[in-house]
Amino acid sequence: MGVGEDASPELCAFAEELGSALAGEGFKVLTGGRRVGVMEAALKGAKSANGQTICILPGKNSREASSYCDEIILTGMGNARNAINALSSDLLVFIGMGPGTISEFGLAIKENKPVILGPGAGKLWDLANEFEIPPVIFKTEDILEILEIIRRKIKT
Amino acid sequence: MGVGEDASPELCAFAEELGSALAGEGFKVLTGGRRVGVMEAALKGAKSANGQTICILPGKNSREASSYCDEIILTGMGNARNAINALSSDLLVFIGMGPGTISEFGLAIKENKPVILGPGAGKLWDLANEFEIPPVIFKTEDILEILEIIRRKIKT
Amino acid sequence: MGVGEDASPELCAFAEELGSALAGEGFKVLTGGRRVGVMEAALKGAKSANGQTICILPGKNSREASSYCDEIILTGMGNARNAINALSSDLLVFIGMGPGTISEFGLAIKENKPVILGPGAGKLWDLANEFEIPPVIFKTEDILEILEIIRRKIKT
Amino acid sequence: MGVGEDASPELCAFAEELGSALAGEGFKVLTGGRRVGVMEAALKGAKSANGQTICILPGKNSREASSYCDEIILTGMGNARNAINALSSDLLVFIGMGPGTISEFGLAIKENKPVILGPGAGKLWDLANEFEIPPVIFKTEDILEILEIIRRKIKT
Repeated sequence: MGVGEDASPELCAFAEELGSALAGEGFKVLTGGRRVGVMEAALKGAKSANGQTICILPGKNSREASSYCDEIILTGMGNARNAINALSSDLLVFIGMGPGTISEFGLAIKENKPVILGPGAGKLWDLANEFEIPPVIFKTEDILEILEIIRRKIKT
Repeated sequence: MGVGEDASPELCAFAEELGSALAGEGFKVLTGGRRVGVMEAALKGAKSANGQTICILPGKNSREASSYCDEIILTGMGNARNAINALSSDLLVFIGMGPGTISEFGLAIKENKPVILGPGAGKLWDLANEFEIPPVIFKTEDILEILEIIRRKIKT
Repeated sequence: MGVGEDASPELCAFAEELGSALAGEGFKVLTGGRRVGVMEAALKGAKSANGQTICILPGKNSREASSYCDEIILTGMGNARNAINALSSDLLVFIGMGPGTISEFGLAIKENKPVILGPGAGKLWDLANEFEIPPVIFKTEDILEILEIIRRKIKT
Repeated sequence: MGVGEDASPELCAFAEELGSALAGEGFKVLTGGRRVGVMEAALKGAKSANGQTICILPGKNSREASSYCDEIILTGMGNARNAINALSSDLLVFIGMGPGTISEFGLAIKENKPVILGPGAGKLWDLANEFEIPPVIFKTEDILEILEIIRRKIKT
């Protein structure tokens, strides 16, 4: 999950590399599926490594979907689909931060999903560390460390 | 919007006072409608001042609704209903912070709704102040100031 | 619930009369809230009798709402909001029939809500009468009979 | 799309055969994904022919999903997810009929999706044939004819 239209080239490069690495390990990559930012970069990376991609679109037109989507789920529910992104993921990695990203972070920890805060998303850390029952959150900008956490948390 | 089960008595007292003040000015109070925390306190305050309350419930059973709800909307969509809370409000006040609150904050600024961060919600301020197009956010723990902002932002 | 853009003047007149009669008995009227057809007619009738109206809009712009809406709930979820219409109603009356109406009928009986099929909606009767556990459905085009059924089924 | 818990063995056999035939032609099979009725039978058929299956679940627990699901989308929105089923499909085949099926039929024709009414779903035909702009609906219980229609309507 991550920033859309305003994503920097650095964040997109990170997302693409991570998508590729995840696909290389046999993980599926799920994003919001639009043709922009971190979403598209992660999908592109996954496809470059012959991975499988799942896209949960806010609209109802498949032309909004990135060309790197294998499965296109058209929700027609705008940002309410962010709840589906959180629920359908075994673990969420955040790269950069926009308004939608913040909502997905909240929804993810609400559903007790493990969360990794990557580059540009570190500020989300401060939000949750005072909760009585702290959510499972990691903060790292190292792709190898991200992979290691995911391997531990998800049984392929 | 605000913290649920884990709300402190202070935050609930603030929410109740604000709900009462808003009702006194003729504003309707909309919350997530459950029988807990800041949600219920704000509704209780509004009803104590003969205000009108609207409740957007996550479940499909009206027994989950606070007894201070006038209108009970049963969504049956869990936390995806947070998107409706944001969309259906003219302005959102945040009191305390739980995972759901974080998601509502993200959804609210995504929809360009004006937002006021009250007590316990100040940390959300840091999240958004670096966005290229900054959302309209106020931070204050003073009820009179909150009312003044709302009067300016909403035409009754 | 009922037909939108294609509603005949007769169906709208029926909806308006029913809305007025329901408001006269103290019932609230909930519809999909757009400025067309049976939805708007029922709301108009209710307001003419000083009733209270609740509108569950598919979009996220309050300008789409009928001017007879008291409470405007903006879902931003398109037709997925039909599920909320069904869940939030104690009983559903169908007048005329469009694609959305058919979906609301299915969702209503799925949630075991009592249903009354008014003028133009009689065809829905045949659909459900073979189910193993038959839903609670009435078929009548008589407003007094509709009111009588509602009085019996709903405790004000 | 079709009947769940109450599905007859005949309808399930038909769904399984159709799922297998669709997979044999390279089509993906999308259903509501639960472990019952026509949903599961179609998925089972598709997997028996090495097809790919997509499941849009109403709940938020992947254990509710059929073991024949490749992609599990957890919506947590109950029957509101029926709108996603309709939107995410290029064409919908109905086998048998329950309340949820009726809602999916309404949502599908609302979105102008082509629809095929298979065994047990023929009653839906009568509903829509009086609409001013008639939806694209076929009625047949012949699997070869269903495949022929799908080939014509969908470019693989």
